[in-house]
Amino acid sequence: SPIPVLETGFVRAVDYMGGDSGIVQGARVSYGKGTRSTSDDRGLIRYLMRHRHTSPFELAVLKLHVRAPIFVTRQWFRHRTASINEYSARYSVLEKEFYFPRPEDIAAQSTNNKQGRADALPPEQAQQVLDILRDDASRCYDHYLDLLNEDENGEKRDPDRPAIARELARMNLPVNIMTQFYWQINLWNLLHFLRLRADSHAQYEIRAYADAILQIVQKWAPLTYEAFTDYMRDAVLLSGPAL
Amino acid sequence: SPIPVLETGFVRAVDYMGGDSGIVQGARVSYGKGTRSTSDDRGLIRYLMRHRHTSPFELAVLKLHVRAPIFVTRQWFRHRTASINEYSARYSVLEKEFYFPRPEDIAAQSTNNKQGRADALPPEQAQQVLDILRDDASRCYDHYLDLLNEDENGEKRDPDRPAIARELARMNLPVNIMTQFYWQINLWNLLHFLRLRADSHAQYEIRAYADAILQIVQKWAPLTYEAFTDYMRDAVLLSGPAL
Amino acid sequence: SPIPVLETGFVRAVDYMGGDSGIVQGARVSYGKGTRSTSDDRGLIRYLMRHRHTSPFELAVLKLHVRAPIFVTRQWFRHRTASINEYSARYSVLEKEFYFPRPEDIAAQSTNNKQGRADALPPEQAQQVLDILRDDASRCYDHYLDLLNEDENGEKRDPDRPAIARELARMNLPVNIMTQFYWQINLWNLLHFLRLRADSHAQYEIRAYADAILQIVQKWAPLTYEAFTDYMRDAVLLSGPAL
Amino acid sequence: SPIPVLETGFVRAVDYMGGDSGIVQGARVSYGKGTRSTSDDRGLIRYLMRHRHTSPFELAVLKLHVRAPIFVTRQWFRHRTASINEYSARYSVLEKEFYFPRPEDIAAQSTNNKQGRADALPPEQAQQVLDILRDDASRCYDHYLDLLNEDENGEKRDPDRPAIARELARMNLPVNIMTQFYWQINLWNLLHFLRLRADSHAQYEIRAYADAILQIVQKWAPLTYEAFTDYMRDAVLLSGPAL
Ligand SMILES: Cc1cc2nc3c(=O)[nH]c(=O)nc-3n(C[C@H](O)[C@H](O)[C@H](O)COP(=O)(O)OP(=O)(O)OC[C@H]3O[C@@H](n4cnc5c(N)ncnc54)[C@H](O)[C@@H]3O)c2cc1C
Ligand SMILES: Cc1cc2nc3c(=O)[nH]c(=O)nc-3n(C[C@H](O)[C@H](O)[C@H](O)COP(=O)(O)OP(=O)(O)OC[C@H]3O[C@@H](n4cnc5c(N)ncnc54)[C@H](O)[C@@H]3O)c2cc1C
Ligand SMILES: Cc1cc2nc3c(=O)[nH]c(=O)nc-3n(C[C@H](O)[C@H](O)[C@H](O)COP(=O)(O)OP(=O)(O)OC[C@H]3O[C@@H](n4cnc5c(N)ncnc54)[C@H](O)[C@@H]3O)c2cc1C
Ligand SMILES: Cc1cc2nc3c(=O)[nH]c(=O)nc-3n(C[C@H](O)[C@H](O)[C@H](O)COP(=O)(O)OP(=O)(O)OC[C@H]3O[C@@H](n4cnc5c(N)ncnc54)[C@H](O)[C@@H]3O)c2cc1C
Repeated sequence: SPIPVLETGFVRAVDYMGGDSGIVQGARVSYGKGTRSTSDDRGLIRYLMRHRHTSPFELAVLKLHVRAPIFVTRQWFRHRTASINEYSARYSVLEKEFYFPRPEDIAAQSTNNKQGRADALPPEQAQQVLDILRDDASRCYDHYLDLLNEDENGEKRDPDRPAIARELARMNLPVNIMTQFYWQINLWNLLHFLRLRADSHAQYEIRAYADAILQIVQKWAPLTYEAFTDYMRDAVLLSGPAL
Repeated sequence: SPIPVLETGFVRAVDYMGGDSGIVQGARVSYGKGTRSTSDDRGLIRYLMRHRHTSPFELAVLKLHVRAPIFVTRQWFRHRTASINEYSARYSVLEKEFYFPRPEDIAAQSTNNKQGRADALPPEQAQQVLDILRDDASRCYDHYLDLLNEDENGEKRDPDRPAIARELARMNLPVNIMTQFYWQINLWNLLHFLRLRADSHAQYEIRAYADAILQIVQKWAPLTYEAFTDYMRDAVLLSGPAL
Repeated sequence: SPIPVLETGFVRAVDYMGGDSGIVQGARVSYGKGTRSTSDDRGLIRYLMRHRHTSPFELAVLKLHVRAPIFVTRQWFRHRTASINEYSARYSVLEKEFYFPRPEDIAAQSTNNKQGRADALPPEQAQQVLDILRDDASRCYDHYLDLLNEDENGEKRDPDRPAIARELARMNLPVNIMTQFYWQINLWNLLHFLRLRADSHAQYEIRAYADAILQIVQKWAPLTYEAFTDYMRDAVLLSGPAL
Repeated sequence: SPIPVLETGFVRAVDYMGGDSGIVQGARVSYGKGTRSTSDDRGLIRYLMRHRHTSPFELAVLKLHVRAPIFVTRQWFRHRTASINEYSARYSVLEKEFYFPRPEDIAAQSTNNKQGRADALPPEQAQQVLDILRDDASRCYDHYLDLLNEDENGEKRDPDRPAIARELARMNLPVNIMTQFYWQINLWNLLHFLRLRADSHAQYEIRAYADAILQIVQKWAPLTYEAFTDYMRDAVLLSGPAL
């Protein structure tokens, strides 16, 4: 069942292959008789993670169904080591579903972090921002339908007017409109994605998705999740000069 | 020097490595003494292309600087076998540059091709479409600056109002706003991209970019370009049952 | 259960994710409401294959356990779009298992196909070849154990002599020694592998593995297998000039 | 000019694209006007490396020509993010060139490091090892030529005997025979390769190649080389629990 994210979005685990025990099984093939001594699954998984023996983690695979705003997918799809099938706005009409931040998430530009946010706005200023966002989204979407010559039920509006091609009409839609996609990725690349996107440098909105996926990973592959937390997520890199 | 595409866009060849002769040199390493008999460069390149010996084409690399609308980059970046550096709307403010189709490119939805266009609209209907697109883009952009509390010269508008975080404000922008990026790809994957995106099934707007890139390839690697045309672009696949 | 290949080798399906129905499900997400009209699963899969809509096939994933000679894995691992865990000859001692061709597979160098075989040798000449191969393999392996100071049961031979490092001793082994590995690949890249390696241009030995994998695909995803056969395996590419 | 490695091997820089300044140029496109403040090239490159902003490093590309023993290429080609053209032992006859360790590199199996070496052997024991390796390599190679019915000059030996197919005859050759290949890789993936293969856990023989490539990188992209040394090579990862 889908985990709700950002109110109108979700992440849903559709299918998976392998998990902690498949990782161990794959690693043991590499080590052959050499693993006789290795104590237990947890120890082996932590060893693999600590030494960045990443290939066994690649044997596990997850398939998700995701609904997210376009500006989030623009960050998401920069991760090239995954397989994607996205809803096509050339084939089909996009629904009137947008992402609007909660008032408490509307924040000022950070001055020290060029790509980040500072404090949240006072409520009534946040409300003004929201009004603008909602207004523009609504008007753009209405014009989108207008160009398509369709009403919200997909019925033709004016029988004498042509419908603009969907691939053209969608040009009018802002990047906070929702899209959806299937996403297949192996566990190693997923952890790499999560390290970058569940991180404080990532934009809040994609972080919300990364956090939901972390819950899925924790259930699916708890030993790997724990090793990831210790050796990737919470780990700190000390440079040569700093040492 | 940049090749203009879609009026406000462009494709510019920044750098490259190798080309026809580097491909031949790489292929000859594979064949070792076995290539003694192979006639000439053109013959060898056509042979490689015909038999899909793709690895020598991977030795040549191209780096482009591109300016394109977001909805085009969304199709473009689905090609995962490339390296990308895109303008960040978290770090910087997007400029007021949009793509608007020429009137003659504004076409109706095709009824037999679910992802394509049919005939162009009559001029005055096209003009109405353009008015909507321009209007909405303009209003959305103005609100974007408003949220950023900036004027078009980057000066603060109201000293007493906070600037919303750029990463949030950009949410209001439609997908026909222009972005730019550096793109590095090897020649084999570039040809694969061109086959898919210079094809009649591709949306007109990305096809315009693919056509510009084809010009670059033709100058850069003329023998490969010719072989591509004959054995990939103009080639036809006959299925087993059809034979 | 493992499918025997080349007598001492095998291919074993360990796990999989998805299949024909998962492909259809993924494709329908892309098309959204646009697929309402699409008839049935078989029709959709054939359509996807014919038009090289490859991304839905990437949603299905297969994991194999394989045992094969090193010279076959050298060809195999050139396919980069897969995840591999191989037996490590640094950690563990390789077993005394080699590939020797059957007498009827020992053939002369083809004179027109520089990378292929011509007719099989007369039986007694084939036998002489086999004697050489077996002899050298046996001597090299015995010296390998000798360097490791081990007998065939892994017991130390001479208590007073050091064991050479495994990573060094294995240098003495010929490329027809058997190794084993886990292999995880998505269905699209698997089909690409099969087209190249179940093809008559591929070396007989890797073709034998590809044929075994084809059996697995046929059972696992019969509609995709059929579409692959018609539109990839048995299809013929006609060049532009030839048309 | 080629850098000699392991006596009969080498690494030769054939071509490259970009370098430190191209990386900076690419990064500045991402940051847009946001980089106005960033001081200098060195500072920016160190910043990118420290924060693992890896995409700008992918814009630089290197092409090498390498000669190495097969057992080294088996480790090398596991790095999938590169393009390779290797000498084909199906098309051509392999030359009689092998790798033999120097006596001082012949070491005992480490007992605490399952995949590593301990102390070097006493000279006369090392000599015995070398005698075995040389002997077996020589015999196997002679039989290889014998199966090919060729002498060392490529002339037919016995006009009445068929030549075994090259792809079969090579089966008799040990993994310390030399092969050669062209290798094209972007700088980020090259650094990843170097971190793993210039590391003390890597086998000495591939480390020798990695060290030669490091020299090339240092000349080609000195600022990146320095940042790599500080933030990747000499850096230490402290786990969450350890902190
Ligand atoms: C006309 C048209 C219509 C389209 N419609 C849709 C649609 O409705 N919905 C949709 O989602 N997409 C759609 N696409 C996008 C399409 O599905 C591909 O994602 C896109 O064309 C990139 O193609 P590619 O995967 O072959 O290229 P690349 O990503 O460059 O990949 C090339 C090859 O590299 C290998 N490869 C690359 N990355 C990986 C990886 N991570 N793992 C394994 N192998 C990899 C594969 O062998 C792949 O075939 C459409 C494309 C076209 C041209
Ligand atoms: C906080 C933050 C800020 C960012 N800011 C910007 C920005 O301003 N501008 C911008 O353009 N991007 C930006 N990005 C995106 C970033 O540059 C990466 O593109 C993205 O994070 C994907 O990371 P990746 O390349 O490691 O992942 P993947 O694409 O999943 O790649 C993982 C690894 O696979 C290998 N690989 C994958 N594909 C290829 C290929 N085609 N060829 C060779 N090797 C390959 C590489 O080794 C790579 O390291 C930002 C990302 C983050 C997290
Ligand atoms: C000391 C040492 C010991 C080793 N021991 C063993 C062993 O016992 N057994 C064994 O089998 N191997 C072993 N290896 C090899 C190791 O498992 C890796 O295969 C090899 O080091 C390549 O590393 P990589 O995968 O990070 O590099 P690359 O293949 O270059 O990949 C870099 C990144 O690109 C992305 N990527 C590349 N290709 C794909 C793909 N097809 N799909 C998805 N993502 C992709 C991933 O994000 C990956 O992390 C060993 C390596 C070292 C250094
Ligand atoms: C009959 C035959 C003869 C051959 N002879 C030779 C020979 O003489 N010498 C030789 O060296 N090889 C030879 N090969 C190997 C061949 O060159 C390929 O390396 C091998 O077949 C793998 O094919 P591939 O690259 O299409 O597959 P994959 O590696 O699985 O790649 C599939 C696709 O994924 C994408 N991709 C994967 N990795 C990357 C990456 N790192 N960067 C960018 N894109 C990537 C590309 O689009 C590629 O087309 C031969 C192969 C065959 C079948």
